Parts: sequence; C-alpha cells; structure tokens
Amino acid sequence: MNSVASDPVLIGLDWGTSSLRAFLIGADGEVLDRQSSGEGILQVPDRDFEGAFARLLAPWNAHSNLPVIASGMITSRNGWVETPYVSTPSGADALANALAEHQAENGRTVHFVTGMTDESGGAPDVMRGEETQIVGALDGIGGDGTFVMPGTHSKWIDVRGGSIARFATYMTGDVFAALRDHTILGALIQDGDFNEAGFREGVVAGRDGGHNLLRTLFHVRTLPLFGRIDANMVTDFLSGMLIGAELEATKSVSSDGGPITIVGRDDLADRYQIACEIFDLNCKRAPHDIAARGHFAIATYAGLL
Amino acid sequence: MNSVASDPVLIGLDWGTSSLRAFLIGADGEVLDRQSSGEGILQVPDRDFEGAFARLLAPWNAHSNLPVIASGMITSRNGWVETPYVSTPSGADALANALAEHQAENGRTVHFVTGMTDESGGAPDVMRGEETQIVGALDGIGGDGTFVMPGTHSKWIDVRGGSIARFATYMTGDVFAALRDHTILGALIQDGDFNEAGFREGVVAGRDGGHNLLRTLFHVRTLPLFGRIDANMVTDFLSGMLIGAELEATKSVSSDGGPITIVGRDDLADRYQIACEIFDLNCKRAPHDIAARGHFAIATYAGLL
Repeated sequence: MNSVASDPVLIGLDWGTSSLRAFLIGADGEVLDRQSSGEGILQVPDRDFEGAFARLLAPWNAHSNLPVIASGMITSRNGWVETPYVSTPSGADALANALAEHQAENGRTVHFVTGMTDESGGAPDVMRGEETQIVGALDGIGGDGTFVMPGTHSKWIDVRGGSIARFATYMTGDVFAALRDHTILGALIQDGDFNEAGFREGVVAGRDGGHNLLRTLFHVRTLPLFGRIDANMVTDFLSGMLIGAELEATKSVSSDGGPITIVGRDDLADRYQIACEIFDLNCKRAPHDIAARGHFAIATYAGLL
Repeated sequence: MNSVASDPVLIGLDWGTSSLRAFLIGADGEVLDRQSSGEGILQVPDRDFEGAFARLLAPWNAHSNLPVIASGMITSRNGWVETPYVSTPSGADALANALAEHQAENGRTVHFVTGMTDESGGAPDVMRGEETQIVGALDGIGGDGTFVMPGTHSKWIDVRGGSIARFATYMTGDVFAALRDHTILGALIQDGDFNEAGFREGVVAGRDGGHNLLRTLFHVRTLPLFGRIDANMVTDFLSGMLIGAELEATKSVSSDGGPITIVGRDDLADRYQIACEIFDLNCKRAPHDIAARGHFAIATYAGLL
C-alpha cells in the first residue's frame, strides 16, 4: 500500500536569535511543508513579532485552525513573550505542562515552549529551543544518551529515562572567534581550507592541556613561531584545541561512555565527529527536522492534537 | 659619612614592544638617571632602531665610553638584532655568556641579553626581557622563589638555586580583553570603578571552575541574567575568574608554597595581591627598577664593568 500525505495537524516554529523556521506537521510528526526567514528575534524590525509571525504563516492561511507551537529564543527577554524556565530534570511532559499560551493578532493561538535551566554546574545554565530539539531527537532515537549541539555556545545534554537530566553550555565557538580575531593568536594565522592535520593536533593538545587553557592557548603562538606547525594549520589547531578542551571537560557530563549524538549537519558537526574519534567516543548524527519532531511530541503530550 | 653619587658605569636598556626605557647605572647598581620613550619596537618609524637608539642616548653623550646592555623584545624577529634563546634552567651567568654584541652606528657597543625558552609545558614557552627583570629581582631579594609578572601575557617564573628553573605564560590579559569586548559576555556589562566584591567572587569561581573554563565562563552571562550578581560587578567578576583560573593552574609551577613575588606596581598587581590572599598564598611586591638591577648583574657576570 502506498503512503499518502496526511493532513496537517500542527504548525511548529523554531524561532531563534538569527533565524526563524516554520514547519507544517502531519499526523505522524512528519514535515509536510516548511517556511524560513532571516527574521531571528534580533532581526525583526521594531520588534514587530506579530507582523513577522503573520507574514511567515500567510502561505498556510488555509490551515488557520491548526494549533501553533513555538520554541527558541523567542521566549527570552528580547523576544515576543518572555516565559520562565523549567528546571532539570524535565522531559516532554513537563514542557507540555509549562506551555505559555498567547493569542496572536492574526487570530491564531501560539503555545510557547519555555526554556530550561540547570544548576548542576554550581551556577545557572540556560537554554531555549535546544530542549525541544532534544525531545524530538529522543522521539527518533529513543532511550538514554548524551547529545552535543555544537555552535557559538555548545550545549551538552544528558538524557536519562526520557528526561533531560542535566546540561551544560560551553562557550567554545564564541571564544574561538574572539581569540582568533582579537588576540595575538591571530597574528600568525594564514587562511585556507580546513586543515584536518592541524585540527587533529589541536584536539590532542586541548585534550591533554585544556584543563589549563590560559597556558595551553599560548602554544598556538609558540608552535608556529618555532616552526613546529605550519601557518596554514594555526586556525584549525586553535579550533581543535578548544573542541578538545570541551570534550575533555564534558567527561563529567557524559559519564557512562555511551554513544554521543551530534545535533547538526554542518562543518562544525564534522569537526566534532573527528574529535569524538580521537577521544575514542562512539558518536552518531541526529536525524533531520528534530525541532519539528519535538514540537509534535510536546503538542501530543499537551493534548493539542 | 654622607653618600655621594657614584660615577656611572653602565647604561641599561629595557626595550619592549610598546615602550623603551634607558637607565644610567652607578657602581652599586643604582639608577642615577633615566630616559624613556614611546618608541617600543613596533612604534619605531621605518624600523630605524639605530636612529631611535642614538636619539635616546644623546643626553648621555658625555658617557659615550660606557658599555650598553639591552633586554626585551628588541631581540625578537621584529626587533633590531634577533638572537637565539637560552633554555631553562639558566641564570645571570648563562645570560652573560650568551650576550650578543652589536656595533651601533653612533659608535657605541650594545650587548643584547637574549631571551629564554622553556619546554616544561610540553611545547615551547618564550620570554624576552622578563628574564632580566627576574635576575634583578633576585639581586634585591635573594634566594629561591616564584615570581608572577601580570599582564597581557602573564609570566610565572620559578627560581631555584639562583637560576630560572622554568616558566609559563598565561594569556590572561589578552583573553580577558577579547572576551569582554568580543563575546556575548560583554552584553550585560555596566562600566564603573573597580568592583572588588565582584572581583573576589570571580576569583573564587575561577579557582573552583577554572579547569573547565569554557563552561565556567558562561556563568559570567547567567549570573547577572538571574540577578545573582549586579551589572556593575560583571567586568571585575570576569577579570577575577580568569586570574583565579590562572592561580589555580599555577599550583603546578609554584609547588613549594613559598612566597610569590608580584612584579609590577599598577592596578593589575593589586588584583593579583587580592587573588593571592583568597588563595591563602603569601605574596609580596618586587622593588622598583629591577630591570636596571638585572642589567647590572648580567654585565657584572660578563665582565663588562
């Protein structure tokens, strides 16, 4: 029997700092259609979120009866409707119970997924949007596990019994760009394509010395100065050192040695995959469209479907 | 009997990246007169080091017979005469044996103190100029000890038996400025006077979490976001966190628990003194003019006087 496209049952929004994606979701959680826009929360003119929302969903006005669920930085202080965080441990059920309802000017009701907070590191950690993706990834993968979401602020998320048990943010990408562009480490950098050898050497250096990063970083200057790595390796050596330090530090998060799921399919995820190999960590990639799967799972728990 | 000013016996130059100081030195190593200029090695027009040298010493042309000894980045690749490094362990005698002689166009002979390198951290570390200051500080203080020279690139120097046994560079100041000005951590900063309470909290946070700096740094964002530290504390909290992480990491260098000598008398040295108190480390300040004292000691070993 051939499968036929189901009728849409839900609209999901993943509305972050720099981008906005919308999914038209079917009865099995599959993505039937999608819209995207560059109107991340910091790019919406005059903070007119109502207008941006109406414009984005106009192509789906035939489905004006569908519930809308939204996740991401859109619920932060600089977003549309600020919502409180739920605390770890929490799963799809807790996120469903904490949905914040908002009546939009175009007549639609938006159910905001609130962010999550964690105090396991001795100070607050926060995320908005990643929790929804993890719920979606669990839907596709199931079970316990550790997830890494590389980026400006990498998130490491530990799932136990279907709930997000704890998580930690690493400022790896943000720190990398600042060091490369605004410290002496940039002076000896020669731009070029991805240099995997340099990256691999950096991962090892970060693994072995990342607990003492303020010192180890200076080697990014001295090694090329002494001709021990080439100028075209320096950027990726620095990148590897930071990612290596991150993986070494996350041993306390991913304590069970189980597989690590890398969320993201870009160049950055490739780097993390190489780094996992160097650490002898079993890793795999998350499937596509996990944000939409998370929207579907949370909406299901909330009885919106 | 009243002391009378002795005749000068030596001219010492401390020629760094951003400044140039000259000392007219007497028979007991005391500074009789001094010149300074903003012509650090990167500021010398057309890299005309001969001209900058002649201009600086013109007021002392009556002492054209005196030997000149010079230390600092002036012997680096971007300087006047590049010299090789001596390796740790080395003291004043090794530096004296490695002096590089240069006949300047104004007829004076310049004896360059070469820099020092250390491999104790698994990769090369380097300094040019600091070794001379440490030799000078030992002359005033004597014995073994650990020295910290705070700055853009802080140096921690371990002296044993009168020789520099090993040293390590921490990129603390460089990293601080890059993070404050070019990452998300700057977003919640409210400028103001030095906030000692914020600094002290930061030192403790860096001491306890600095081995995992990429994660701990994110707390500089979340703590003010959650109202747990005030906006006017954030800059100094970040400064304290990095200095706390540095002190925690240097435990491996300053292993004997002996007193730490802070070289430098500016605001930065005050911060390190507070941090040492929090770490329950005995610390003191180095005397003035240790560069000139180092020049005198090395020149004495070299038989130049």
